[in-house]
Amino acid sequence: MEEMHKKVVKTKDGLYMNRGNGAASYANNSSLQQQVIFMTKPIRERAITDIISKLSPKTITITDLGCSSGPNALLVSSEIIHVIHSISAKLGQKHPEIQVFLNDLPGNDFNNLFKLISQLHQDCPIISTEEKMLGIQQRCYHSGVPGSFYQRLFPTESLHFAHSSFSLHWISQVPEGVLKRNQCNIYIAKTSPTMVVEAYYNQFYKDFSMFLKCRSIELVPGGRMIFTMQGRKSKDAREDGHLMLELLAEAISDMVSKGLVEEEKLHSFNLPVYMPSTSEIDNLVKEDGSFIIDHLDTFEVPWSAHANNNNESPSCNKSQFTESDGVLVIRAMRSVVEPQLINHFHEGLLDEMFNRFHKKIVDCMAKQKTTYSIIVVSMQKKTKRENYGRVLPFDIINSTSVIDC
Amino acid sequence: MEEMHKKVVKTKDGLYMNRGNGAASYANNSSLQQQVIFMTKPIRERAITDIISKLSPKTITITDLGCSSGPNALLVSSEIIHVIHSISAKLGQKHPEIQVFLNDLPGNDFNNLFKLISQLHQDCPIISTEEKMLGIQQRCYHSGVPGSFYQRLFPTESLHFAHSSFSLHWISQVPEGVLKRNQCNIYIAKTSPTMVVEAYYNQFYKDFSMFLKCRSIELVPGGRMIFTMQGRKSKDAREDGHLMLELLAEAISDMVSKGLVEEEKLHSFNLPVYMPSTSEIDNLVKEDGSFIIDHLDTFEVPWSAHANNNNESPSCNKSQFTESDGVLVIRAMRSVVEPQLINHFHEGLLDEMFNRFHKKIVDCMAKQKTTYSIIVVSMQKKTKRENYGRVLPFDIINSTSVIDC
Repeated sequence: MEEMHKKVVKTKDGLYMNRGNGAASYANNSSLQQQVIFMTKPIRERAITDIISKLSPKTITITDLGCSSGPNALLVSSEIIHVIHSISAKLGQKHPEIQVFLNDLPGNDFNNLFKLISQLHQDCPIISTEEKMLGIQQRCYHSGVPGSFYQRLFPTESLHFAHSSFSLHWISQVPEGVLKRNQCNIYIAKTSPTMVVEAYYNQFYKDFSMFLKCRSIELVPGGRMIFTMQGRKSKDAREDGHLMLELLAEAISDMVSKGLVEEEKLHSFNLPVYMPSTSEIDNLVKEDGSFIIDHLDTFEVPWSAHANNNNESPSCNKSQFTESDGVLVIRAMRSVVEPQLINHFHEGLLDEMFNRFHKKIVDCMAKQKTTYSIIVVSMQKKTKRENYGRVLPFDIINSTSVIDC
Repeated sequence: MEEMHKKVVKTKDGLYMNRGNGAASYANNSSLQQQVIFMTKPIRERAITDIISKLSPKTITITDLGCSSGPNALLVSSEIIHVIHSISAKLGQKHPEIQVFLNDLPGNDFNNLFKLISQLHQDCPIISTEEKMLGIQQRCYHSGVPGSFYQRLFPTESLHFAHSSFSLHWISQVPEGVLKRNQCNIYIAKTSPTMVVEAYYNQFYKDFSMFLKCRSIELVPGGRMIFTMQGRKSKDAREDGHLMLELLAEAISDMVSKGLVEEEKLHSFNLPVYMPSTSEIDNLVKEDGSFIIDHLDTFEVPWSAHANNNNESPSCNKSQFTESDGVLVIRAMRSVVEPQLINHFHEGLLDEMFNRFHKKIVDCMAKQKTTYSIIVVSMQKKTKRENYGRVLPFDIINSTSVIDC
């Protein structure tokens, strides 16, 4: 059993973070996500204020969808717990009990996640002496929920708040009909044929629609959902695919031309991701009809955010990049895409592949502005009054039977 | 990762069982528990009928406390799901959604448990074609809950049905003051001094009272709890300790006398278990005051039940025991107590220890009637009307703050 997530640290904001010591581990390379979580805290605070003031639940039920077994599962949920306590105190309401459902695919390391939770309870009493003096009673119950968030995970109207951080750009499968048709690309790129772009969008459409449908059934009326995911700025996915993935494809292509990787292997590899535009998200939410969006935004985070552990605004000024920034960026990317690559390419080729990828990243960071586009969405499930008069399309009326597990 | 619980089998009763192939694995040695689960099915059916007819919940929330990662987690919960469906159909009620919380200590192999659940959903669609034709929509959501059932695990009044199978005789720790005072015994035995008997009872009293207190807060009024555990028949724990554990203590003592184990090692080893009598259970439930017991019984199951995989009534006729029965009994015992022994004795001594233990078991089974006493309790949390007029003792009034996590 890997013991890399040993240390749980309480920050000034009452958040719990793990400081791992593994080399290429996801736990060690999630500072980008941590920064996005810090940046989006006010949006969560508004949503939680809304839940507490309007719904006043005795128990708030929250879920972190696609939590992984790294630091962010605890980071998000502990932040939310902290926010619930401080907002309840501000509104003069009794602190509710909190039920936290940590979700990820069944292959996630839930054993490690549960060790972290139990360590958090033992080592860092969640309530401080100061909080105790304020009368805060920590009553928080954690569960793990194995399963895809593209299916039903919870009973009808059982959730108050659903959160997902950096997971929704992973679609449920590589789109059908893409393999061997996307030339030397591993995701949508400038040279991708139209049918590849369409196949990727269609898979995203299917998955994201199902995600909205499932959550709209599971959330109570007036319940809230917030998610962050990687996205894109321009309308045309080909114009604004994913520079990082294009560099990875180039690194693999170079190995093909050197005879180190069979061409066939590259042509049969595509990643199951999709970076939507905000208008694509907006249209799908409107089509679903169950939610009101009150915040939909995209912002840029420089690649160098991977190298920033101090929650300071990372720089996207290319002159400030160092070689060691490149090392941290490649570590982060390796931790994210390696599981996909190992399944397809020979494991022995990966060091060479990531060395080449590293060089391309460093060159790129030195030459141009390199950023990720991050989409943040905050929405509310319509109440019965808000839904009144809306004609439900046939597929929504029948949604429960369609998505039964 | 151990892959021993690969095969999920659907039985005639709609129950899901794993047929493991590990040698001394718990998964392979739980036929005793499986038989007790089969034998106690009518009691669960009555409790579930009561919940559905009186409470009619849209979602039934159930938990299996101390589920392990072996076959019984799925066995109990899948049986309960099946019973909920058939009783709802009988009562002409709509099939409720079901939320299943599988609980065990954080060190339990939840990864394996979740793989089993996901395999169950993939390989054995929980609803058969026949059930689909009856209009049964399977809507069942599984979660894992890491933590001790001697603490709060769920929000207030959030459970309809709590079940625990063969776990409650494990107390939270070896009682204080027992070590080095229990002579060559590893649990209460004829030669145990009174203070050891008292210390064991006091620990059980503390743990079991806390268990009742926590569950009484977590269950809805009218909610039900059923548990099976090992117990004893006679009033005096010394007269009716645990024959199997006495044989294990004898095997270790023999190794001490041969110089294979240090005497000090035996004297500092005691098991964290307690086998209560039905009157001890009854008294503690009355003292807690939150539940009405409607079934409290003890029955005998022969040791040979470990060797019975066909759910037939096992025999306790000593002439029918075979050498291979002894092998299966020792395998079962090894799977249960080995983790405790490995923590204390040198791992290299365990084969010798279990060989000696095996001989003693076979001799004993040939000479006398060898049975386990199993306690079955079914109880209902009092409704507000049933509680009306009851004066709450101070510690119960303050229970929430006492047992906050």
